[in-house]
Amino acid sequence: MLNNTVSLLSWDQETYMPEAAVDYRAEMMSFHTMRSHRLVKSKEMFHWLAAAEDDIKTKKELRNLEELRYSVDRACCIPQKLVKEESLLIPRAKASWVKARAQGDFLLFVQDLEKIIKISRQKAECWGYDQEPYDALLGTYERDVSSVQLDKMFARLKPKIEVIAQQAVTKSSSNKLQKLPGKYPVHEQQRFNESVARSIGFDYQRGRIDSTAHPFCTRLGPKDIRLTTRYDESDFTSSLFGVLHEAGHGLYEQGLPVEDFGLPSGAAVSLGIHESQSRLWENHVGRSLSFWQKWFPTACECFPALRKVQFDDFMQYIWRAKYSSIRVESDEVTYDLHILLRFKIERALINGELKVNDIDAYWNESFEKSFGFKPKNAAQGCLQDIHWSMGLFGYFATYTLGNLNAAQLFQQAIKDKTIAKEVNLAEYGGLLQWLKKEVHQHGCLLSPNRLMAQATGSKTEETAYLKHLNLRYSRGL
Amino acid sequence: MLNNTVSLLSWDQETYMPEAAVDYRAEMMSFHTMRSHRLVKSKEMFHWLAAAEDDIKTKKELRNLEELRYSVDRACCIPQKLVKEESLLIPRAKASWVKARAQGDFLLFVQDLEKIIKISRQKAECWGYDQEPYDALLGTYERDVSSVQLDKMFARLKPKIEVIAQQAVTKSSSNKLQKLPGKYPVHEQQRFNESVARSIGFDYQRGRIDSTAHPFCTRLGPKDIRLTTRYDESDFTSSLFGVLHEAGHGLYEQGLPVEDFGLPSGAAVSLGIHESQSRLWENHVGRSLSFWQKWFPTACECFPALRKVQFDDFMQYIWRAKYSSIRVESDEVTYDLHILLRFKIERALINGELKVNDIDAYWNESFEKSFGFKPKNAAQGCLQDIHWSMGLFGYFATYTLGNLNAAQLFQQAIKDKTIAKEVNLAEYGGLLQWLKKEVHQHGCLLSPNRLMAQATGSKTEETAYLKHLNLRYSRGL
Repeated sequence: MLNNTVSLLSWDQETYMPEAAVDYRAEMMSFHTMRSHRLVKSKEMFHWLAAAEDDIKTKKELRNLEELRYSVDRACCIPQKLVKEESLLIPRAKASWVKARAQGDFLLFVQDLEKIIKISRQKAECWGYDQEPYDALLGTYERDVSSVQLDKMFARLKPKIEVIAQQAVTKSSSNKLQKLPGKYPVHEQQRFNESVARSIGFDYQRGRIDSTAHPFCTRLGPKDIRLTTRYDESDFTSSLFGVLHEAGHGLYEQGLPVEDFGLPSGAAVSLGIHESQSRLWENHVGRSLSFWQKWFPTACECFPALRKVQFDDFMQYIWRAKYSSIRVESDEVTYDLHILLRFKIERALINGELKVNDIDAYWNESFEKSFGFKPKNAAQGCLQDIHWSMGLFGYFATYTLGNLNAAQLFQQAIKDKTIAKEVNLAEYGGLLQWLKKEVHQHGCLLSPNRLMAQATGSKTEETAYLKHLNLRYSRGL
Repeated sequence: MLNNTVSLLSWDQETYMPEAAVDYRAEMMSFHTMRSHRLVKSKEMFHWLAAAEDDIKTKKELRNLEELRYSVDRACCIPQKLVKEESLLIPRAKASWVKARAQGDFLLFVQDLEKIIKISRQKAECWGYDQEPYDALLGTYERDVSSVQLDKMFARLKPKIEVIAQQAVTKSSSNKLQKLPGKYPVHEQQRFNESVARSIGFDYQRGRIDSTAHPFCTRLGPKDIRLTTRYDESDFTSSLFGVLHEAGHGLYEQGLPVEDFGLPSGAAVSLGIHESQSRLWENHVGRSLSFWQKWFPTACECFPALRKVQFDDFMQYIWRAKYSSIRVESDEVTYDLHILLRFKIERALINGELKVNDIDAYWNESFEKSFGFKPKNAAQGCLQDIHWSMGLFGYFATYTLGNLNAAQLFQQAIKDKTIAKEVNLAEYGGLLQWLKKEVHQHGCLLSPNRLMAQATGSKTEETAYLKHLNLRYSRGL
């Protein structure tokens, strides 16, 4: 209840809260966060858990208790003082990040970022790790991988993605349609997005879509899933892909067993699996030919400006690739290059190999090596993402894990002939049922690797993803 | 913090929450309500209050502690069990009321209403009273009056209002404009309402306006005041008067001393005073000739449909009076007749003189005596208001007290020549400053009667209000 209260306070802050309310909101969030932490660390919790562990009757109870024990043990490692310090620092750090980004001045963010990294390193020490501090932070989001494993996997991926990206960028530069013509009014986008979201199975009785600066998905209760997107009146696909991405998260949350809400068996297992659901609906579904064969005519009805556009040109526009400085605006094929950069930098920061003062220069230099140019300023560079201001170190890598998992799951799902046939007609009922059965319904009962192995025959690998990128971006299928 | 959390949970429920989330939301609200009640009743609170009372240094501290002591004592009277029972019953009762109203079937609501009345009577017994149980409930909203006093005041008011109403209704029936022509799109109404709300001083940095089935105003933090309204595309004045009314509440909340937030000196004193602020801006400002002399041209710019309407006809439309069954749709002059009816019925219910099963028939009979006809069905009769389903017995009378206070305060304010001159030009900066000084800034430090006496020279009386109604509705000024 306390954690869901914090989620509502946070959702409201991002969507509707008046500007001047921010200080008191930070106090309220800290108040509930502290109490939640205090309860988890309480003697009662200790006794309840011990008593339950002495009385395990089913495999499900065993797994639930293992996961609860893991969370409780992790919470118990962190002193109350540190929780308080962090919960009060983050709203301030977020504010200084917003200011620094608006002015493109990294120096305005340096002090708070240093404090956040210090707290993150302290937390890593509290939790402990085998090889390096960054491992401990990764464990918050993804427990089945170590930094070294990720590093090796990313090292294998990088040159292959660079080749595909290079070809795709060159090909896109000669696209007939470089920009959509005309204007796409927000309320028409909302209508169109709602039709799409409903058609892939998002349940509006148990959810809604609002508008925010940064799209996200959050769960405020067993039957209360909130998505957000943002609108660009010159391009309706921007808000649509936001909705498809967040609805992917939302379908996962809506697919978790409602009766297990509050238990590990009723919660999402990891960010790498969560992101697989969002990327699957955004890219494998939403950027597919068959999806647009169905939805392009409807889009033309909603948006008169689109009627001038040829379908083939539109698809090339959807599949365009371009080296750009901003991660969230980047295309499917260059996306992971952004992630790989962040993984390298934040790992070095947490492991004490890079100083906060050197981030800006190091970012620009590394970015140039991958993308061939330097960001215009820090707002287009190391200040672009909100994550660090919120203390979310270890989070970025899960985006690429999500891409790998998405491809692997999707390719497995369409091995079923009925699902494949439906997907070709842009009908996704069977696909959603398959995802519910293989992913959603397990909650945390299967670890990410077990889940992937059970669903697809192997744990997370890069093969399926590279095959997908190659088909769509090298061979243009 | 806990009470503000409950307010946010409730605001979200009314504005944006998905339908299926209601059960868990009720649990969350009950969880925080119970904890708040437990804290107020705790030993720590007892010791802190006692220690503070031993160490009073200023008159303000004295008044704050007197008010805190009153609230704590009242909370301590109620057993935890009753708080739990009530907090879990209300969401269910609200749901059964919604259903009963939709089907116009009072029987669907009878069981829950009986439970709510039982709880309300138990609370009255816990709190104690001098003359009758209803007095104890009145005290939640208005401490300076007793049921007998109100009854006498209402008995004096009733025949006078009935005469004015009769004349006004007859006059209105020959109005040229019985209905606004054309359509008034919601987003244009929102733009117009926002201009008006800003111009009277509502601060959007510290507040916002949303849309709900029933307009309300709530405070979620020292700088976070949320208003709501509802839209009728055939009449833009419906949402506008909603906004003016709620903004009146909002200006009061925004005018309370921010640094005293959480203390009685930073909180609104009573509903009768609160309602005086909303009714002042809605009726004395928003239904005045000078207001429309300024805003009618802007309204015509926003709403092409209005351009066909003559200004004089529009003013007669604004001032129309009609006997109607629904309180919230009624005009300024018949409004109190609705209140007087509810006061009589709920007083009888709480004092045990009327049975729940007899409400419907008793309502219709009493209504006919005042209004000359019977409501079509229970949805138009005793099921129309949400209050009883939420356990808000003792609340209705404060609407009429608010009308009396509004007239008394407004007439006092415009005795100041500068304010009167500004108001005649539809400029309200001076009026708002006066209200801040005489009403808002005091928080709970002055009792309603003290506040009214200090601001206007006498406690709440009916003279100013009757003068206002007479001027506007008998003499048409």
